[in-house]
Amino acid sequence: MRQVRDTVDLATDDVDLKFKIIQEALAFLAENFDENLQSNSTGTRIQQYIKKETGCEDPYKLEKIESNRIALDVLPKVREILKEDDSLETFVKIAIVGNIIDFGAYGLDADWEAMINEGLKKDLVINDIESFENALNKYDEVLYLVDNTGEIVFDKLLIEKIKSYGVNVTVAVKEKPILNDACMKEALEAGLDEVADIISTGVDSVGIVESMVSDEFLEYFKNSPFIISKGMGNYEGITEMDLEGQDVFVLLATKCPAISNHVGVDVGSHILHKLS
Amino acid sequence: MRQVRDTVDLATDDVDLKFKIIQEALAFLAENFDENLQSNSTGTRIQQYIKKETGCEDPYKLEKIESNRIALDVLPKVREILKEDDSLETFVKIAIVGNIIDFGAYGLDADWEAMINEGLKKDLVINDIESFENALNKYDEVLYLVDNTGEIVFDKLLIEKIKSYGVNVTVAVKEKPILNDACMKEALEAGLDEVADIISTGVDSVGIVESMVSDEFLEYFKNSPFIISKGMGNYEGITEMDLEGQDVFVLLATKCPAISNHVGVDVGSHILHKLS
Repeated sequence: MRQVRDTVDLATDDVDLKFKIIQEALAFLAENFDENLQSNSTGTRIQQYIKKETGCEDPYKLEKIESNRIALDVLPKVREILKEDDSLETFVKIAIVGNIIDFGAYGLDADWEAMINEGLKKDLVINDIESFENALNKYDEVLYLVDNTGEIVFDKLLIEKIKSYGVNVTVAVKEKPILNDACMKEALEAGLDEVADIISTGVDSVGIVESMVSDEFLEYFKNSPFIISKGMGNYEGITEMDLEGQDVFVLLATKCPAISNHVGVDVGSHILHKLS
Repeated sequence: MRQVRDTVDLATDDVDLKFKIIQEALAFLAENFDENLQSNSTGTRIQQYIKKETGCEDPYKLEKIESNRIALDVLPKVREILKEDDSLETFVKIAIVGNIIDFGAYGLDADWEAMINEGLKKDLVINDIESFENALNKYDEVLYLVDNTGEIVFDKLLIEKIKSYGVNVTVAVKEKPILNDACMKEALEAGLDEVADIISTGVDSVGIVESMVSDEFLEYFKNSPFIISKGMGNYEGITEMDLEGQDVFVLLATKCPAISNHVGVDVGSHILHKLS
């Protein structure tokens, strides 16, 4: 409901319409809120409904532009920091730091160095770094599911590191705007095309939702033996899929109690977790 | 809905019951969410429903004990700070600082002195201090509507200051537990009986709700020419009442966009506002 309110406020100034949408979202949740509710598909349906009702196809457009801009401005500082310690684990950590920073919330003159160093100091509460390095040595390609705009600038650093293992990276972005998730436009702004092939999930869903992604993407996913998944939305989606025979690594910060409980760690934990 | 979730988590461990209550609250809001919705009476009805369904009469019991305990421990430091500047305005400010601090969220070893000084530094965005002092010189009694537990320890300081003007204070607390609002038990813990008479609103409502308070309290309220009201809940309630002929002063920090817009100030403003 907080997300609904945020999106509605970004998508329209029509107060009557805001009330209508919030009423509908409440009614939809009242109907469907139980232990079997899938938050990804529910969130997707509500976000798609808001876009349709308001006619605003990209409520987070300005926020996304600002997030990429800030992250790109900060990038040189981050590269400096990584010169001190260029271990694989540090690159994993920096990608997770990208997942926790709300880039739009801070100005350029924020103390980015301090914020990033603070994030890097946090140990990985689940740390499957050895399996991860083994996979990088074993495979020659990986499917990398990205999450938010801004964050993808930090993903680019990890992708460069992954490529140093001789592994080609294919990044999957959302087909159409959903929240502040990266689409093709934002991936190009961040320069991901310089280091990876970019494909689309074929849909504007919250994270990966098996029943919603395109047949083409689903086939690509099923045929990928090595997958990296960023963030909570993708985590929720892929943990509902059959990943037998695939090496799937989850990189995220557990930002809410539901995900933290599911993973079995405290809220605010940074994890590199081999799912299967 | 955030408040519903917080209260449900405090009130019961029964997961099925939590889902049922949240569904009911969503459905109730879906039915009633429009521009005419009164948040006080809605919040009250939902909170009363949670208490009834869970059988937990005081979900915030432990939080309230902790808040008063922390605030009382901090009190000597606050008295030290007030020795430096014992103007009426500083006492008003300290009562508003009590309204913003979430006492339960910090331990005893937090830097309370810094937090309080930080709060005192904030100017009153609406500052009717002259009218307030005139009222203190004009009347010999005042009705003081308190808000949260913990906060009331800081109210005690302002009440002492008010008494130095020769004004007797009657504090109104909630009859039964509602959120972390102060009831008689918490007022006695904070020692308010040492400086004021204590009466009850006769009900467990969020702030003052004219249609819900006891006839006895409503008569007392209507016959009080001078009233001080703390916090957003009371603000919402009294702005819906006819205050003609009464001198009513509102002391609060505007914590949410709805109240901030209504007052006409930014979120996070501290105000001493003569309502009528």
